[in-house]
Amino acid sequence: MMRLSPPGALRFGQARSLDVVYGGGESNVAVSLANFGLETEFVTRLPANDLGEACLQYLRQHQVGVRHIVRGGDRLGIYFMENGAVMRGSKVVYDRAGSAFATIQPGMIDWRTVFADAGWFHWTGITPAISESAAQACLDAIQVARGLGVTVSCDLNYRAKLWKWGKTAGEVMQELVNQCDVAIGNEEDAEKVFGIRAEHTDVTAGKVDADHYRSVCEQLAERFPNMKKIAITLRGSLSASHNTWSAILWDRGELFTAPIYDITHIVDRVGAGDSFMGGLIYGFVSHPENCQRALDFAVAASALKHTVFGDFNLVSVDEVEKLIKGDSSGRVSR
Amino acid sequence: MMRLSPPGALRFGQARSLDVVYGGGESNVAVSLANFGLETEFVTRLPANDLGEACLQYLRQHQVGVRHIVRGGDRLGIYFMENGAVMRGSKVVYDRAGSAFATIQPGMIDWRTVFADAGWFHWTGITPAISESAAQACLDAIQVARGLGVTVSCDLNYRAKLWKWGKTAGEVMQELVNQCDVAIGNEEDAEKVFGIRAEHTDVTAGKVDADHYRSVCEQLAERFPNMKKIAITLRGSLSASHNTWSAILWDRGELFTAPIYDITHIVDRVGAGDSFMGGLIYGFVSHPENCQRALDFAVAASALKHTVFGDFNLVSVDEVEKLIKGDSSGRVSR
Amino acid sequence: MMRLSPPGALRFGQARSLDVVYGGGESNVAVSLANFGLETEFVTRLPANDLGEACLQYLRQHQVGVRHIVRGGDRLGIYFMENGAVMRGSKVVYDRAGSAFATIQPGMIDWRTVFADAGWFHWTGITPAISESAAQACLDAIQVARGLGVTVSCDLNYRAKLWKWGKTAGEVMQELVNQCDVAIGNEEDAEKVFGIRAEHTDVTAGKVDADHYRSVCEQLAERFPNMKKIAITLRGSLSASHNTWSAILWDRGELFTAPIYDITHIVDRVGAGDSFMGGLIYGFVSHPENCQRALDFAVAASALKHTVFGDFNLVSVDEVEKLIKGDSSGRVSR
Amino acid sequence: MMRLSPPGALRFGQARSLDVVYGGGESNVAVSLANFGLETEFVTRLPANDLGEACLQYLRQHQVGVRHIVRGGDRLGIYFMENGAVMRGSKVVYDRAGSAFATIQPGMIDWRTVFADAGWFHWTGITPAISESAAQACLDAIQVARGLGVTVSCDLNYRAKLWKWGKTAGEVMQELVNQCDVAIGNEEDAEKVFGIRAEHTDVTAGKVDADHYRSVCEQLAERFPNMKKIAITLRGSLSASHNTWSAILWDRGELFTAPIYDITHIVDRVGAGDSFMGGLIYGFVSHPENCQRALDFAVAASALKHTVFGDFNLVSVDEVEKLIKGDSSGRVSR
Amino acid sequence: MMRLSPPGALRFGQARSLDVVYGGGESNVAVSLANFGLETEFVTRLPANDLGEACLQYLRQHQVGVRHIVRGGDRLGIYFMENGAVMRGSKVVYDRAGSAFATIQPGMIDWRTVFADAGWFHWTGITPAISESAAQACLDAIQVARGLGVTVSCDLNYRAKLWKWGKTAGEVMQELVNQCDVAIGNEEDAEKVFGIRAEHTDVTAGKVDADHYRSVCEQLAERFPNMKKIAITLRGSLSASHNTWSAILWDRGELFTAPIYDITHIVDRVGAGDSFMGGLIYGFVSHPENCQRALDFAVAASALKHTVFGDFNLVSVDEVEKLIKGDSSGRVSR
Amino acid sequence: MMRLSPPGALRFGQARSLDVVYGGGESNVAVSLANFGLETEFVTRLPANDLGEACLQYLRQHQVGVRHIVRGGDRLGIYFMENGAVMRGSKVVYDRAGSAFATIQPGMIDWRTVFADAGWFHWTGITPAISESAAQACLDAIQVARGLGVTVSCDLNYRAKLWKWGKTAGEVMQELVNQCDVAIGNEEDAEKVFGIRAEHTDVTAGKVDADHYRSVCEQLAERFPNMKKIAITLRGSLSASHNTWSAILWDRGELFTAPIYDITHIVDRVGAGDSFMGGLIYGFVSHPENCQRALDFAVAASALKHTVFGDFNLVSVDEVEKLIKGDSSGRVSR
Repeated sequence: MMRLSPPGALRFGQARSLDVVYGGGESNVAVSLANFGLETEFVTRLPANDLGEACLQYLRQHQVGVRHIVRGGDRLGIYFMENGAVMRGSKVVYDRAGSAFATIQPGMIDWRTVFADAGWFHWTGITPAISESAAQACLDAIQVARGLGVTVSCDLNYRAKLWKWGKTAGEVMQELVNQCDVAIGNEEDAEKVFGIRAEHTDVTAGKVDADHYRSVCEQLAERFPNMKKIAITLRGSLSASHNTWSAILWDRGELFTAPIYDITHIVDRVGAGDSFMGGLIYGFVSHPENCQRALDFAVAASALKHTVFGDFNLVSVDEVEKLIKGDSSGRVSR
Repeated sequence: MMRLSPPGALRFGQARSLDVVYGGGESNVAVSLANFGLETEFVTRLPANDLGEACLQYLRQHQVGVRHIVRGGDRLGIYFMENGAVMRGSKVVYDRAGSAFATIQPGMIDWRTVFADAGWFHWTGITPAISESAAQACLDAIQVARGLGVTVSCDLNYRAKLWKWGKTAGEVMQELVNQCDVAIGNEEDAEKVFGIRAEHTDVTAGKVDADHYRSVCEQLAERFPNMKKIAITLRGSLSASHNTWSAILWDRGELFTAPIYDITHIVDRVGAGDSFMGGLIYGFVSHPENCQRALDFAVAASALKHTVFGDFNLVSVDEVEKLIKGDSSGRVSR
Repeated sequence: MMRLSPPGALRFGQARSLDVVYGGGESNVAVSLANFGLETEFVTRLPANDLGEACLQYLRQHQVGVRHIVRGGDRLGIYFMENGAVMRGSKVVYDRAGSAFATIQPGMIDWRTVFADAGWFHWTGITPAISESAAQACLDAIQVARGLGVTVSCDLNYRAKLWKWGKTAGEVMQELVNQCDVAIGNEEDAEKVFGIRAEHTDVTAGKVDADHYRSVCEQLAERFPNMKKIAITLRGSLSASHNTWSAILWDRGELFTAPIYDITHIVDRVGAGDSFMGGLIYGFVSHPENCQRALDFAVAASALKHTVFGDFNLVSVDEVEKLIKGDSSGRVSR
Repeated sequence: MMRLSPPGALRFGQARSLDVVYGGGESNVAVSLANFGLETEFVTRLPANDLGEACLQYLRQHQVGVRHIVRGGDRLGIYFMENGAVMRGSKVVYDRAGSAFATIQPGMIDWRTVFADAGWFHWTGITPAISESAAQACLDAIQVARGLGVTVSCDLNYRAKLWKWGKTAGEVMQELVNQCDVAIGNEEDAEKVFGIRAEHTDVTAGKVDADHYRSVCEQLAERFPNMKKIAITLRGSLSASHNTWSAILWDRGELFTAPIYDITHIVDRVGAGDSFMGGLIYGFVSHPENCQRALDFAVAASALKHTVFGDFNLVSVDEVEKLIKGDSSGRVSR
Repeated sequence: MMRLSPPGALRFGQARSLDVVYGGGESNVAVSLANFGLETEFVTRLPANDLGEACLQYLRQHQVGVRHIVRGGDRLGIYFMENGAVMRGSKVVYDRAGSAFATIQPGMIDWRTVFADAGWFHWTGITPAISESAAQACLDAIQVARGLGVTVSCDLNYRAKLWKWGKTAGEVMQELVNQCDVAIGNEEDAEKVFGIRAEHTDVTAGKVDADHYRSVCEQLAERFPNMKKIAITLRGSLSASHNTWSAILWDRGELFTAPIYDITHIVDRVGAGDSFMGGLIYGFVSHPENCQRALDFAVAASALKHTVFGDFNLVSVDEVEKLIKGDSSGRVSR
Repeated sequence: MMRLSPPGALRFGQARSLDVVYGGGESNVAVSLANFGLETEFVTRLPANDLGEACLQYLRQHQVGVRHIVRGGDRLGIYFMENGAVMRGSKVVYDRAGSAFATIQPGMIDWRTVFADAGWFHWTGITPAISESAAQACLDAIQVARGLGVTVSCDLNYRAKLWKWGKTAGEVMQELVNQCDVAIGNEEDAEKVFGIRAEHTDVTAGKVDADHYRSVCEQLAERFPNMKKIAITLRGSLSASHNTWSAILWDRGELFTAPIYDITHIVDRVGAGDSFMGGLIYGFVSHPENCQRALDFAVAASALKHTVFGDFNLVSVDEVEKLIKGDSSGRVSR
């Protein structure tokens, strides 16, 4: 997906050029993993035109495998993003209708081949929101992955503006999420998709109380008995320029918490959830069953994402671990 | 319509920002007329989002009337353009499917109000190519305009990549063109749309023989008896950086020719046909029935367009007339 | 007026390009009102050259009426602005001497025509500071407006560097302000122009006590008995990058206060007072006599201005109202 | 003087940033000489503000002496330049009225100190055009220089738009030019200033016949008996993008000619005459009385100027001499 | 290798930013082949720092295999390039001393693994020029490749400024070239490296006579009996902005010629020889033994390179074949 | 030295252009002094190529004397800098090996001439770190300066990555520092170079206790009995975007402290220590023996540096004194 944004803090009508990067939920996770040294394949459908090619080049630059990407369809999905500042929030205008991916059809991707050597499959709630056939492709992929013993994770990722093809998120997501081992979401996703909500949370105050979210995890776990791990990212939105960021991780009854990072000068907050997921998968893959370590890594990695332009989290394991060790002083590394 | 192009001579995959302008056939003509001092209204449908607003602002900047523009639909049409150089031609990737205009429906625009005080209505062959409903809207407009005694002109403007909604250009355009008083086209349009062709032309040689095109005009006039004036723009494509440019005008049997301009360092050739049409309408409106004057003005105006970035021809009557008088020396005006 | 500023935080001597926008007190107010949906006309004099034309285009883009603008004179007024950061303040170098507006003469603008259908006339203290003839034009306009029953408002706007043509601000402003219904100013204006000052204020502490400013309003009201409403904007200058912002409104004895906004990452603070005035006028026009609503709207609108590049406040009624309702979280609107 | 120009081939109304350089006749010559290794001092008056400082920095960067520059006055002179292309000529909007230099007064510069160690004084016809006091300062300087035995040269440099202060160029220049040893001009200057014209020239044809200009030199020499050397630059304006360039030099009856350079892709033609003068002075100073060598150097240097952005001719003696030796192949120097 | 160049036509001293791309002889060839759909591996040594990583990303973007690249050493090689215009030639400042590649040591690369599945090995004369150890690495690679039956090609590529490590190009290249099957060079390389020269050539006249170069091929073939095919690129340097371009191919006694392309508006001429080599290898691999086809493809591909910014030739097989078929009109592809 | 940095907050791999400035320890100090009105000479060795020339131009622009700079050597030293944000620190990649300065040899600079009229010589610990010959040149300079009665100051400036030529910083610096009158350093330098450390400091807490540093000064003074004044800059690194900044000055037993500046939105922190040194020298030269005044000036000047892009501190005495007087409100200066 192409992302077009006015430079700096300009509004759409002021821009005479738009910065271009490529990104989107699953690709963002794939880039995080590639940066952490894991081998990844990003699977999607891109149009067989120069823009699809440019997108491929961008993915390749970041070392994401592209050999399962199929080409075809009419257009590349686009989203326009205007950067906010202080109390003016960022704005996203989606322009994904009719994209190559939205018009994907069953059979276009051979999921058995895709998952032949795979260990982990991740998808986000944005995919089934795009179109009915995309939802179907997502379901196919999950079933094949599960059948082959591949771990399946999802990001609930609710986007109200995208669910327009006939069914509600709740109807569709139930079956998809039910077959997942790991799920992440933020404080809104569980409520908007499944009507599950935390109590007493006050996100605008810049502080979150992890315990309040335990019940969200437990409600999700009850509804989706296959679910082994659930993480909830906790964003305190003080302003468009200043957020706090943390997360909790629930693992079959046990709750893990992480430090709250104070991100006082946000560079780019898009893709934070994806960078969290990338950190979490890396944690689980590199040190299986060490939940605290995985959570700490994921939160630190995604805190750093806020300092990187674009959708992708271009940081290394070393940089994340330096932050985990407590060095948030931002000193010059000479 | 939004136009996005890599800066300078960069290819799509090299760009990390895209220059943004707005434009498109009919709006380009409207801007030309506004620059020449005529009052104009551009009629279209734009989405009710920030990008539609940005497009409106751009039109207003250039003094085009926007009060008949209706808002709605899902997305703003886009086209991506990569600038060529020498033997590498420019590339256009259309991304107009599903645009607000493509999904226009009969009745969304009240053509009687639109044409209440109008003297001239211009449309291009791109409009009916977009979708069936756009073709219908175009037909409605033509009929209302004609019924109110408004002069109707068209640019045949054949775009093979756009005619995808079911009917061919030939089928659809016959009825639309049949109700026009004035038409323009280039050497390909008449052939691709109606199968009418000139003889012995060799456009790559950089020279065109006006007489060869007389037969194109006569064949068109025979097919469309309402047609009073037909102009054909003559582009000699020596390379992406160097073209020659001229046109002929046929007025009920009489053929007018114009100088051939040698455009050795093209800045932007998109919108040349539209700028020609703008010049022609201005000529006919400001000095009715003076065909030679109108043609000379239109050719000079559109030659100058090649030196202006973007779709719009941002030149004044004075600048065009200075060129008509023979001053193509490009001296500094201090 | 053209505004030229080095990109980002560069100093004048470092810049090899200057960002260009157009703006200035009254036009800034007009743009605010246009963005809020009111019909406006900006009246000034611009040179009959390409720069005057560029300025006109810029105004038109933002939907400000320009039909009463007269053309002539030698040059377009310019101001150069260097953006500050933290403890380095922004610097403005005025270059307005001899501008088309400074050399305006009585009779150049037909105020009776201008105000024929007008409901509100706004002027700022910058206008009479420019030149004696500009002060005279301002007085003419006020008198005609008042004679036609048009509400007149002013922004005291004291600029020490501009008052150079012979008289002091105090001498000239007395007569002009005396015929106004509404006035705004900041904590310095009343003192510098009329010697009226608040007590006990400590603006550098980042907090302002509204009551201290009541006396300023009362002193002004006593001096200008026609004045019905007086507003004072309250800026707490913690640094060039971080300000607090609020205002009070005095309406014939009654004092209204508003929340204090904490603007932690200023994008552009120029035009804040104008955006406040724009919000205030919009408030009074859309909901007459609802002072609290007008003040809340004006303060929120002008707080948002600090997040928008350029002189103009490019925000919508919806955005302002969302902020009034307390959502300053700057969350991404997807 | 500050020069502001839209990037690339953009028109004024399209620009959202302006490229900034500093320059102007005499400073351009000084920079050429500094680049060629001669010690120079540029004498002018700059405002005591940040823009004057930025201008000083720019001059210093290019190794021009600035110790005789005086500070004061209201503003820095500006000129806006829009780059042309092909048949669209470049446009210059002067904004120099009221500049620090225009308001210079007798006695502000101590010419005796300035010329204490000087060998050559150069001025251009732009200086006396700015204002009466600037013309007076110019006359003072010439007289002091002449009295101290300093060689005096001038560039006739006629700018119709600047001569507005009361007298005509002809009236004023007579006395000034009469005290010069060396003069240059182009084909228009002699005619516009003194009514002296060549015969049979056809500059738009891209070819010039040197002999036709001999009479111009002879008429000038007759009128100004102190004049020892006169050079005329010969520009063939094929288009804004393509010029030919040469010059002739007349030395007390003897006529020297130079090759005609074909400049097919002009980068920046402003300052060409100044770069010619810089080359000529360098030639005369480094190899006195070798007219052919000086002319060849001056023509080659100023041909190269057309390939350099800005007013200044940033080329070295080596680069000029390589061109004189016939290497115009533009091969990569690795 | 990092390439840093001032934007547009700016000179080094004018630049406040430098455009950055990565490139260099062998990588340029690899990118061409990757664009034409062949699988390639680029083998070099890059420093284990962030700049080495950035270079890797750039290569990956263009689909070049990087798995044999070794990491280590002190610095990334750099070259600075100033773009010329018309008679001002481009300038290259090499800054490659001490680079990771220059300090490569025998054994750092396991050539047997590298060439395990390879069909073709290409190296350029720049490699042995860098340092003695680089020359040794080059020799090792050639010998291993040859031993494994891999076709070996070289570009003579003489760069006088680089040969500084003790031996002359002639001494070193003799042994290296002697083991090659295919060689290319331009009109200078054969002479500067081996003292072999053509007769009667006049490259500055813009025309080359292919037959004159037959003798160069024959002399090379006589000296290097393993050589089966020799190509000579023929550049006519009319100016820095305008070149002609062609080549000849000699295959064991038979001489093939190609059309001369007129490149009137050069975008970037660096990498032209490499893009020729890329086209030639593609030709030989895709249609073995069809010399005319390979030559035509190589010349057309490298002509197109002149229209692409950067070192890499970012064109497709389709674009090259369209040009071979004679369409150099540069028409817009919509 | 050339500094190349990705624009804004981009990471190295994202950049397609790099901002270029020139700088480095001693030159930064020289520019500060020049901005404060003192005459300075910067002495170094620059390569005799276009990049050396560009560096010279940059220095001249900022009014630094360059007449003692010698030309020669292979390359200009470079450092690449990636700007950090919040908890992502800035990164510096040095590329100085083999630079013109690193290969300086005894005798290349005639220090007796250099110091003929000098009053103060400043050097930094970066110089002897570069290479053995640079360390020798530094020692030569110090000895000559001292012999001529010139005050000598040093900045301990420890850079671990640079000390690679064989000796440790401690070994080399002992002799060099021993001959200095004034030294500055930060909290790490004294420890890393001489093993001298403060007690109980907690720099990450954003607060520093001046008294803890008294012992550092006393230990240094004991070790270097010639030392009269020692200053220690105190940086509280809250994040890459937010630091506190202060310093202490020890003068033969007496300890002076300064306010702590809260720099909430850092523009560029490189060169802060140099700008402190520049302020200190200015203070001592302009008001000898007024330690408090010198310290206050130095701290305020270097606090302001954090708001200026590039290595150089482009602020004036007026701006520093305004800040000393307590005005850190960053108000617009109109």
